[in-house]
Amino acid sequence: MPSAIVAGASGYAGALAARLLHQHPEFELTAVTSRSDAGIRLDELYPYHRVPLTLDAFDVDTHGDVDAAIVAYPHGASAPAVEQLHERGVKVVDLSADFRLTDPATYAEWYGEHGAPSLFGHAVYGLPERYREQIREAHIVANPGCFPTAAVLALAPLADVIGDVVIDAKTGVSGAGRAASAKTHFVSVAENVNPYGVGRHRHTPEIEQELGVTVQFTPHLLPIDQGELVSCYVTPTDEVDVAERFRSAYDGEPFVEVTDALPGSRDVRDTNLCRIHATHDERTGRILVFAAIDNLWKGAASQAVQNLNLMFGLDETAGLR
Amino acid sequence: MPSAIVAGASGYAGALAARLLHQHPEFELTAVTSRSDAGIRLDELYPYHRVPLTLDAFDVDTHGDVDAAIVAYPHGASAPAVEQLHERGVKVVDLSADFRLTDPATYAEWYGEHGAPSLFGHAVYGLPERYREQIREAHIVANPGCFPTAAVLALAPLADVIGDVVIDAKTGVSGAGRAASAKTHFVSVAENVNPYGVGRHRHTPEIEQELGVTVQFTPHLLPIDQGELVSCYVTPTDEVDVAERFRSAYDGEPFVEVTDALPGSRDVRDTNLCRIHATHDERTGRILVFAAIDNLWKGAASQAVQNLNLMFGLDETAGLR
Amino acid sequence: MPSAIVAGASGYAGALAARLLHQHPEFELTAVTSRSDAGIRLDELYPYHRVPLTLDAFDVDTHGDVDAAIVAYPHGASAPAVEQLHERGVKVVDLSADFRLTDPATYAEWYGEHGAPSLFGHAVYGLPERYREQIREAHIVANPGCFPTAAVLALAPLADVIGDVVIDAKTGVSGAGRAASAKTHFVSVAENVNPYGVGRHRHTPEIEQELGVTVQFTPHLLPIDQGELVSCYVTPTDEVDVAERFRSAYDGEPFVEVTDALPGSRDVRDTNLCRIHATHDERTGRILVFAAIDNLWKGAASQAVQNLNLMFGLDETAGLR
Amino acid sequence: MPSAIVAGASGYAGALAARLLHQHPEFELTAVTSRSDAGIRLDELYPYHRVPLTLDAFDVDTHGDVDAAIVAYPHGASAPAVEQLHERGVKVVDLSADFRLTDPATYAEWYGEHGAPSLFGHAVYGLPERYREQIREAHIVANPGCFPTAAVLALAPLADVIGDVVIDAKTGVSGAGRAASAKTHFVSVAENVNPYGVGRHRHTPEIEQELGVTVQFTPHLLPIDQGELVSCYVTPTDEVDVAERFRSAYDGEPFVEVTDALPGSRDVRDTNLCRIHATHDERTGRILVFAAIDNLWKGAASQAVQNLNLMFGLDETAGLR
Repeated sequence: MPSAIVAGASGYAGALAARLLHQHPEFELTAVTSRSDAGIRLDELYPYHRVPLTLDAFDVDTHGDVDAAIVAYPHGASAPAVEQLHERGVKVVDLSADFRLTDPATYAEWYGEHGAPSLFGHAVYGLPERYREQIREAHIVANPGCFPTAAVLALAPLADVIGDVVIDAKTGVSGAGRAASAKTHFVSVAENVNPYGVGRHRHTPEIEQELGVTVQFTPHLLPIDQGELVSCYVTPTDEVDVAERFRSAYDGEPFVEVTDALPGSRDVRDTNLCRIHATHDERTGRILVFAAIDNLWKGAASQAVQNLNLMFGLDETAGLR
Repeated sequence: MPSAIVAGASGYAGALAARLLHQHPEFELTAVTSRSDAGIRLDELYPYHRVPLTLDAFDVDTHGDVDAAIVAYPHGASAPAVEQLHERGVKVVDLSADFRLTDPATYAEWYGEHGAPSLFGHAVYGLPERYREQIREAHIVANPGCFPTAAVLALAPLADVIGDVVIDAKTGVSGAGRAASAKTHFVSVAENVNPYGVGRHRHTPEIEQELGVTVQFTPHLLPIDQGELVSCYVTPTDEVDVAERFRSAYDGEPFVEVTDALPGSRDVRDTNLCRIHATHDERTGRILVFAAIDNLWKGAASQAVQNLNLMFGLDETAGLR
Repeated sequence: MPSAIVAGASGYAGALAARLLHQHPEFELTAVTSRSDAGIRLDELYPYHRVPLTLDAFDVDTHGDVDAAIVAYPHGASAPAVEQLHERGVKVVDLSADFRLTDPATYAEWYGEHGAPSLFGHAVYGLPERYREQIREAHIVANPGCFPTAAVLALAPLADVIGDVVIDAKTGVSGAGRAASAKTHFVSVAENVNPYGVGRHRHTPEIEQELGVTVQFTPHLLPIDQGELVSCYVTPTDEVDVAERFRSAYDGEPFVEVTDALPGSRDVRDTNLCRIHATHDERTGRILVFAAIDNLWKGAASQAVQNLNLMFGLDETAGLR
Repeated sequence: MPSAIVAGASGYAGALAARLLHQHPEFELTAVTSRSDAGIRLDELYPYHRVPLTLDAFDVDTHGDVDAAIVAYPHGASAPAVEQLHERGVKVVDLSADFRLTDPATYAEWYGEHGAPSLFGHAVYGLPERYREQIREAHIVANPGCFPTAAVLALAPLADVIGDVVIDAKTGVSGAGRAASAKTHFVSVAENVNPYGVGRHRHTPEIEQELGVTVQFTPHLLPIDQGELVSCYVTPTDEVDVAERFRSAYDGEPFVEVTDALPGSRDVRDTNLCRIHATHDERTGRILVFAAIDNLWKGAASQAVQNLNLMFGLDETAGLR
């Protein structure tokens, strides 16, 4: 049974990844790390995950002797840790944005200097529905951002006919991370909805890279803890059979549901599923696509496990049903 | 002091209208009516409104001897009551959609047969920021829908340069009315967000009438009780000075705030305000406009009072600060 | 593999029971029934449960040829269905209150006439932590109410020394059932907390039966969907070692956690766990016990499955981890 | 018109106090202070309060030349500022706990050393319903804590017959203050309820001082932003006419509602009201009292304004309707 660690397990996504690996039938979770919370038991921080391990400060000499790692560090801090683990031969899924972009200039423009330039471009983008075969062979997988996961799954079947697209996204607060701030205070969020990162959210270039078109992307913060919905408004360049496009794209996919019903974020809470509804609005000529995921699951931790399953030749759905 | 009634005061908007008139320095609220809840005190149904009146079943002979009425009936049911009151010389603000549209064919297409055809076209559209002078002279005012209020205030300053527009709206549950249903059950709404009325929401023709362009309009339901945000994505036909447009449109308006900060629905909760942020996205060329209102206040009851103030020659802000 | 049905699967508890049996490794879910929603697929009503069965109207001739049944009918309606199934030899777990009380006079006082008097007193009270051996042999198990589950687990270790006890309970809205009403409307519940059923909630006699003392029990409704907390204030008749009492009562119990930390309802969401903290307040002499459960899980559906596991000689935790 | 400042106006209670004084017909708000947020406009921090003043760092030489001050500092930090203002002849309402207790030993036990020992015992406890006349003459008023406000109003009419009392309190998150922390993070609070401060909450001695009995007091945190409910379970030493007790205690009180209906926190949101329901439970012999307030209003800022109104000989309800 391959051994695995989660580095950065005190954050929301890392802690969930630890739980999923702890319960996983085919991996053994051997350590969880966190600088800020070293010495604390993970099941004290997150009773509901019930992972009976104590957080250590990460040290590649101590923790690098494993088969697999999920790294859940902030952007920028991740690359050096990924590099250290990779040099030890550990297969890594990185939850940060450090390895998602393939164009160095785009990376520099949106994120600045890279933390491990020699590895830039060596990772596979971890959206199994698009890159399944490459992920099977990968040593480093860049787990997609939560919004790109939903938006790319929603729009990939139409990528060749997107003349123009507006993506209006809505997300729960866990997407903002565990750091306490005025923005994540209950009193700021309750009974409120507001846009943020208008025109400059860093998931924009990631979506554009995968779709090959310029997108208008705006996220909004909602008073829900987990859950995400993207509403996509496509002006197509050509007439297409929308239903057929989505059927053929996702037929047989274990974690994509194409539905007649309009999706709600609650339909997929605590699952690795993406639930999609696509329709042609005859009145306006647009194609509308709505896709819901759980931002901490398919948008982060459970998709990381899906990727690990592929990298280790396991059933892709192991530990995720 | 003019006397006033609220017909249909057991619904959310009607009850709030009753409270606003009850506390109003220049109107005397003499009766509140409701068929379904006749005999019940309004402050029993809504303790927080503290209106110490008992609901009656509406009867124009009993209730028609007043100066002003706010009618808060469902679409279709409203027109006959408005007609009865109008014939008695009562000045009426109607919260339903019955008198908002000016084109009979459009009305028929979206709503079916009209309940008072002889009055069709006689009402003034009750958005004071656009029709202030006409409202002062009006005998029937059609109070705008909640989404059109926010969307038209957001987009009117750009109406002549809208090449194309996507309006993605988010609303609290009170917008769905007081009727208990699976959709308004707490368990259905909590931790959820979903689109509804996709491609066929009845506020669409109302927005299009006021802006003179076809719009792509989609509302979404959120777990908040009051509050509404519209996110508008405009492809302009021409270059405009966005800031200047909004400044000149709303300078001096007592109930419109144009802000540098992005608006949240909570910023305007329990007020008659519309808070707007507009910006040009240089990367995409689009103009983005975000507008927040309280759907029960500026989106319904307090805007009705603003209209009544105008109709009776009072200070437009009386009872609304 | 024993076959099982859920009768009354369109309610919150019944639907969850159906999901748990559908995913259960040792039962085969063969049918789900509902009068009001017959003909609808369960995964249309509850997409997140993903049970691909269509609801039938219950008919013992059609549905009675199974090994096990969970009956999730309202109080009063349940007894006749339980009787029909029992006569066919089906082992039944009944989620209603019809068979929980053992004293006919108490039943009559709080509930009125019984629906199947000949079976009165034949059921075992389905709290495995107290009646595990009897449940193994039972043909009818009366699944405890949600509040009694939490309150009895919280107080049973102290039952012999309770001089006096106040139980202040807090519950999520799903406990009120799926019926849409003014009380369960999102707008009524959000930003609110209120007591209900003061002095006359029907879970009172059930708690008193199990503890053998008079209790002061008051539930409160909170804006959460699932989750329940009981706060118990005991005036003891004698000095006891509180920690030792709880340790010895629950050591080895798979679904009870006795913790040093104060429990929150979220700690046990979507689990069959009861999480308990007990402490002696030296200043006042009282013993305080706080217990959290998920009202739909340990308070209803998953406890029903725990009972079925025992009745069929299976691992008590099968399908519940 | 008397001039007034709010010191510590960047916190929730201070900011609301600033809004109430800004809108007050009889006070002129001349300054708002905050060390941590000096230089920021208050209407940037709290758009919904619409107070167009910039926060200064407090300096008694700059700000002490006024008639009235509301001090909203944390416990301990408040006393020195109150002392400085008092020495300048400013009438002060202090929102902290620094001057609430009258017994130095009790203060030392629960809070430690006092910040202005020479003033200890010089303040009047600012619960107008009990100390109206003393408040009129006071120079320093110690505004009650939120829980004591609700609990004392709920229990004062029974104080002479309380043999024993359990007070189970529920509060919204704004009561925890504006400081961002793991406890106030939306994700920690949503879908959760938990007790805190068990056996050692600092409002306990304040309640006991006012009632003259030992109380068992436990607060619980709920997913609401504003609002508070106390549920009080009294074992009386004597038979009393409960309804008559509350009627005579609160008849004519402008801000206390004694109701037949059970109170919800939402009934009093954004008001200075306390809504109380009291009843005798014949089955158990206890008297149950439920009282709801808005923790930021009657539990803090609006009660401070009510006190200022009295101290300046104004109508007690000025600016509070």
